[in-house]
Amino acid sequence: MSTSHAAHPDRLLPVDSTTRAVARRLLAHVEDLPVISPHGHLDPAMFVTDDPFPDPTTLLITPDHYVTRVLHSAGVDLADLGVGGSNPDVDKQAAWRIFQQHWPLYAGTASGYWLEQEFEHVFGIHPERLNTDDPDDIYAELSEVIARPDFRPRALADTFGLEVLATTDDPLDDLAAHRTLAADPTFSPRVLPTFRPDAYTKMYNAGFAENVEKLIDVAGDGQTGYAGYLQALRNRRAYFLDHGATSADHGTHNADTTPLDDATAQRLFDKGRAGTATRAEAAAFEANMTYRFAEMSRDDGLVMTLHPGAYRNHSASAFARFGADTGHDIPFALDYTRGLQPLLSDFGENPDFHFVLFTMDETVFSRELGPLAGYYPSVYLGAPWWFIDEIDAMNRYRAATTGAAGFSRYSGFIDDTRAYCSIPARHNTSRRVDAAYLARLVGEHRLTEDRAADIIVDLIDSSPRRVFKL
Amino acid sequence: MSTSHAAHPDRLLPVDSTTRAVARRLLAHVEDLPVISPHGHLDPAMFVTDDPFPDPTTLLITPDHYVTRVLHSAGVDLADLGVGGSNPDVDKQAAWRIFQQHWPLYAGTASGYWLEQEFEHVFGIHPERLNTDDPDDIYAELSEVIARPDFRPRALADTFGLEVLATTDDPLDDLAAHRTLAADPTFSPRVLPTFRPDAYTKMYNAGFAENVEKLIDVAGDGQTGYAGYLQALRNRRAYFLDHGATSADHGTHNADTTPLDDATAQRLFDKGRAGTATRAEAAAFEANMTYRFAEMSRDDGLVMTLHPGAYRNHSASAFARFGADTGHDIPFALDYTRGLQPLLSDFGENPDFHFVLFTMDETVFSRELGPLAGYYPSVYLGAPWWFIDEIDAMNRYRAATTGAAGFSRYSGFIDDTRAYCSIPARHNTSRRVDAAYLARLVGEHRLTEDRAADIIVDLIDSSPRRVFKL
Amino acid sequence: MSTSHAAHPDRLLPVDSTTRAVARRLLAHVEDLPVISPHGHLDPAMFVTDDPFPDPTTLLITPDHYVTRVLHSAGVDLADLGVGGSNPDVDKQAAWRIFQQHWPLYAGTASGYWLEQEFEHVFGIHPERLNTDDPDDIYAELSEVIARPDFRPRALADTFGLEVLATTDDPLDDLAAHRTLAADPTFSPRVLPTFRPDAYTKMYNAGFAENVEKLIDVAGDGQTGYAGYLQALRNRRAYFLDHGATSADHGTHNADTTPLDDATAQRLFDKGRAGTATRAEAAAFEANMTYRFAEMSRDDGLVMTLHPGAYRNHSASAFARFGADTGHDIPFALDYTRGLQPLLSDFGENPDFHFVLFTMDETVFSRELGPLAGYYPSVYLGAPWWFIDEIDAMNRYRAATTGAAGFSRYSGFIDDTRAYCSIPARHNTSRRVDAAYLARLVGEHRLTEDRAADIIVDLIDSSPRRVFKL
Repeated sequence: MSTSHAAHPDRLLPVDSTTRAVARRLLAHVEDLPVISPHGHLDPAMFVTDDPFPDPTTLLITPDHYVTRVLHSAGVDLADLGVGGSNPDVDKQAAWRIFQQHWPLYAGTASGYWLEQEFEHVFGIHPERLNTDDPDDIYAELSEVIARPDFRPRALADTFGLEVLATTDDPLDDLAAHRTLAADPTFSPRVLPTFRPDAYTKMYNAGFAENVEKLIDVAGDGQTGYAGYLQALRNRRAYFLDHGATSADHGTHNADTTPLDDATAQRLFDKGRAGTATRAEAAAFEANMTYRFAEMSRDDGLVMTLHPGAYRNHSASAFARFGADTGHDIPFALDYTRGLQPLLSDFGENPDFHFVLFTMDETVFSRELGPLAGYYPSVYLGAPWWFIDEIDAMNRYRAATTGAAGFSRYSGFIDDTRAYCSIPARHNTSRRVDAAYLARLVGEHRLTEDRAADIIVDLIDSSPRRVFKL
Repeated sequence: MSTSHAAHPDRLLPVDSTTRAVARRLLAHVEDLPVISPHGHLDPAMFVTDDPFPDPTTLLITPDHYVTRVLHSAGVDLADLGVGGSNPDVDKQAAWRIFQQHWPLYAGTASGYWLEQEFEHVFGIHPERLNTDDPDDIYAELSEVIARPDFRPRALADTFGLEVLATTDDPLDDLAAHRTLAADPTFSPRVLPTFRPDAYTKMYNAGFAENVEKLIDVAGDGQTGYAGYLQALRNRRAYFLDHGATSADHGTHNADTTPLDDATAQRLFDKGRAGTATRAEAAAFEANMTYRFAEMSRDDGLVMTLHPGAYRNHSASAFARFGADTGHDIPFALDYTRGLQPLLSDFGENPDFHFVLFTMDETVFSRELGPLAGYYPSVYLGAPWWFIDEIDAMNRYRAATTGAAGFSRYSGFIDDTRAYCSIPARHNTSRRVDAAYLARLVGEHRLTEDRAADIIVDLIDSSPRRVFKL
Repeated sequence: MSTSHAAHPDRLLPVDSTTRAVARRLLAHVEDLPVISPHGHLDPAMFVTDDPFPDPTTLLITPDHYVTRVLHSAGVDLADLGVGGSNPDVDKQAAWRIFQQHWPLYAGTASGYWLEQEFEHVFGIHPERLNTDDPDDIYAELSEVIARPDFRPRALADTFGLEVLATTDDPLDDLAAHRTLAADPTFSPRVLPTFRPDAYTKMYNAGFAENVEKLIDVAGDGQTGYAGYLQALRNRRAYFLDHGATSADHGTHNADTTPLDDATAQRLFDKGRAGTATRAEAAAFEANMTYRFAEMSRDDGLVMTLHPGAYRNHSASAFARFGADTGHDIPFALDYTRGLQPLLSDFGENPDFHFVLFTMDETVFSRELGPLAGYYPSVYLGAPWWFIDEIDAMNRYRAATTGAAGFSRYSGFIDDTRAYCSIPARHNTSRRVDAAYLARLVGEHRLTEDRAADIIVDLIDSSPRRVFKL
């Protein structure tokens, strides 16, 4: 048995010994259940080619903005880590040395916990060795591990117990990889596409005009303008449904969902394509589209996930150098109550419409999300996500939403990850946090242990299947 | 002794055994004190007629939007529960079956805890039986219980230890029931009216014009327009004071309190009566009236309670079918600091003006309410209310307000209930949560146990008497 | 050994015995380290004259708005405490009696904890005696204590272990006291000035025109208008740097940092001096100046501290009677993400620019501050400050920021105090709270105890030195 604290069987469980014993028993019900991952950012092609991962830096550092941002905060230039394709000739081993020199900075962070778990449980490297060993030795050892046949993407899927994995895909993606995997009898996980149309709704981003023109051309059934655009979106959703998709994902700026009449929408759409829409007009169009996507979900049954409230690419200078998704999307305050009112008044009473709400603004947990999900049969509480997919925040989430919404409105855990090897750690974390929370309720005589055991299985296994229509 | 977790003497107390022992001792000082309920929504007529409750569904489910919203979130049609008079012929026993089938969904919710306590302590039914027994059997058993003489409203008032109960009343209510009860030497609880003028201040709601016309006719002393309106409100407040009222309750949309000069107020008032006020004008008038009610409270001594920040009747479709107070009032972010500045600058320094602030937006606990109540002698911290009248939120409230405001600015517990049988459970919960919180402070050597014992008696018993001028 | 709970060696440590033992060991690493206080409001002249403190009331009550506000909330007139020079003939001993009569109200508050610690550890008075003894006796005893030679300001600096103390100074201050102290070989603490230009940036406050006129006259190098104003600010910053300053402190209304072009800035500046700027224009100018100060900090290296989000002088009636800083600055909701975007896009990527962000709005901990500090190398997390410099809030701060930002982005503890004798209590509190927090992480197997020991020394000692360039 490992002497690492990262392998301690009681990690993340409550310190009080009586409660810890309850938590242990609850955890035992779910710790080995398969992994269901209804939202994430892996590339499905990796399971088609099943190539070995190229090197430790490319696997663990460069593409993971959770990891690179910590280094950046310490003054490391993202170019030295190869972020955003900024430096194609980056020295991978030198990047690893930078990472390992800064390893103490990860203490206490969510990424630090995941990485420790990965080193311990996936790579077989005692995490304390990152403090003591030469980085080049660790790099060499990791390089050997990822060269092994049992470390190919498909083999890891088995090791990780992966049953369902959803990817996030452009509406015009041909979904060839998904098709190939679905047709492959030797590959058992379900790898499902997710319809993510953000690039076609944000007039304020570069590429909007080109994107929608192509969309209408490809899928508009010969219609033009706003009508063709809506028709093309409907058609591509149908295509995704045909390829196994069960959900559509929407990362909007804010939570506004005010619909526009067709004439107004057409007028704004034309301005957006001409590049003459004001920021307010672009926002109004985006809000209208959130409403329209709910309407489409009502009609075609795709689960709708929504996550507004991130100021994307906050550092203009870094965005210019490294592009999007490089660690400086910063949350801001959300107003779900007023924002969602038009959408929910029209579609929210329908139990077949599944509407999963995510946030990075914890203030909405008890103020808005609990009350909304505890009333509307369509509304589900997305798992705490991104910056708040973190041990203490996950606990606060339960403590803040359960009083109003109970446990039945939970989406199931969402890893949302680009880091394949972090999947077991993330799912295991959520299982431990839920065991800890439920054990406290048992200890306070608010639940019987039997009922808590039912609940934890429901949270971990049944909820994501039910909510994401798997 | 019951084997139910709902009867465990240590329920809601801290799990750490040393702290739990302190909490037990603190709780013993207050657990059996009488119930003082300075704000709620019961019908005083029930104590006049003292009729038996008609059936379990009407007593426990239909009128309680805390209970029905959980069922609604699971897809139950509110009409099947008889909500809002939508379905006068609803099958009460079938509604009970629906409730009991969904009983597991209440686990962890505030309503679930209250209901368990009611089944255990009021009805004598082990709450686990709701999971195991036939709903028709439970329904029959409950029907027998509520037919007993010791289950009439007056008998229960004794059982519950009810000393003071405030109701919430329309300004034009004749308060006949209150008068009858006050004159009845055989009935000991004080049942006090509360002046609630919301229907006369919100131009954006249906009925405003008719309401104010009637108000001015009845009580305007022959004056007309805005002056007659203010005079009528003053007169009706005097009438309430004559009938024992000690407080006036105000459920505003937001926290704005900017006063208007008389000419502007008159102009907006005329537009409101004509139905031509814009939303902004209606809001400005409502803000002015919050200020005016503070002015009246300064003059007549009625305690002023304020609870802005709920988006009323959020689901337009449900409102159309079922009317108000059916579970979809949803909180939104409050700004007490800027909103209350005009009112507090003019009246806040007066210790005889009692101004109790409620919120469902926990963010104002440490940011605004603690700092306001810790300075202004008029401002009191309303107990956590509605969605946050919940075990963990009550704990967060103490932890977030005590550092800035201590314990002396607390309003005392407010049950705000429409569910008569939940009163003991709600008050007992608040006593347990306060015992748990204080025991932690003792355990951390921040308070002596003797001082904690003084404080808990003050919180539970003296605070509501002092703040509500009882 | 004292029997007072205020002297208990385990005060503020976790109640669970295993975790408490870890916390004790962690605390032992830092409890006796010197005090580094990079931001506060003491008068440096007291160390020059080294006069005895005049009387207990003047030392402990009158100038400390944390203390007087509690009394005010209980209905005490601030004039009876001599606040704001409102009552030069106030009876000091009578004021002390008022304080001691209200002593129970401090239970659970941050000020109450500090005062207890001061009575116990600085004055040698068992804090329970404030409940039992005659106020005149306590007053006499305190008077004796403060007359002792070991109670002079300089002697206390030794007793308190003061190594660094920053004051807060007007840009036109000649810093003579700082110069004297720096030149005095018999005085060992470093007493550093801090550049605080608020009175020169807020057009909406009285005195703006006079202040900037004088500033330009004195330090504008003969330039006039906006250019002379900027030059004068630069010159005075250089003067402060020459006198040992390492930081500039900015208390802005909100977090906006949108820069203005020079012509617009000049135009608003002229209107501000003429007294004709609108509130919006004044806000725009203030935002521009926040941006400009960041630009100056980039150039001259002064650490920039920012603390927006307080509604200053909330009670207009009290402000008219007692002036500023008398207990009714009230926090409101902050928007750091959008507000700081212009500034951070231009300067935030620079690791040599140190930008410390304070808040009293806890909602930004996990939503904005953790994500910002966990990315931008310039951004540091200010310690929880003012109303949230409080035991439970400090714990929430760690729990809310560590997941995203770890420990390395912490500013170190800031006491921000006007109350000299509270310094040991405040710093000791922060050490205990950090020990408690880290002990929990060790107990949950998220950190090894060795690593936690490294971290606590870094938090308490290395962080403030590093962040404030000491």
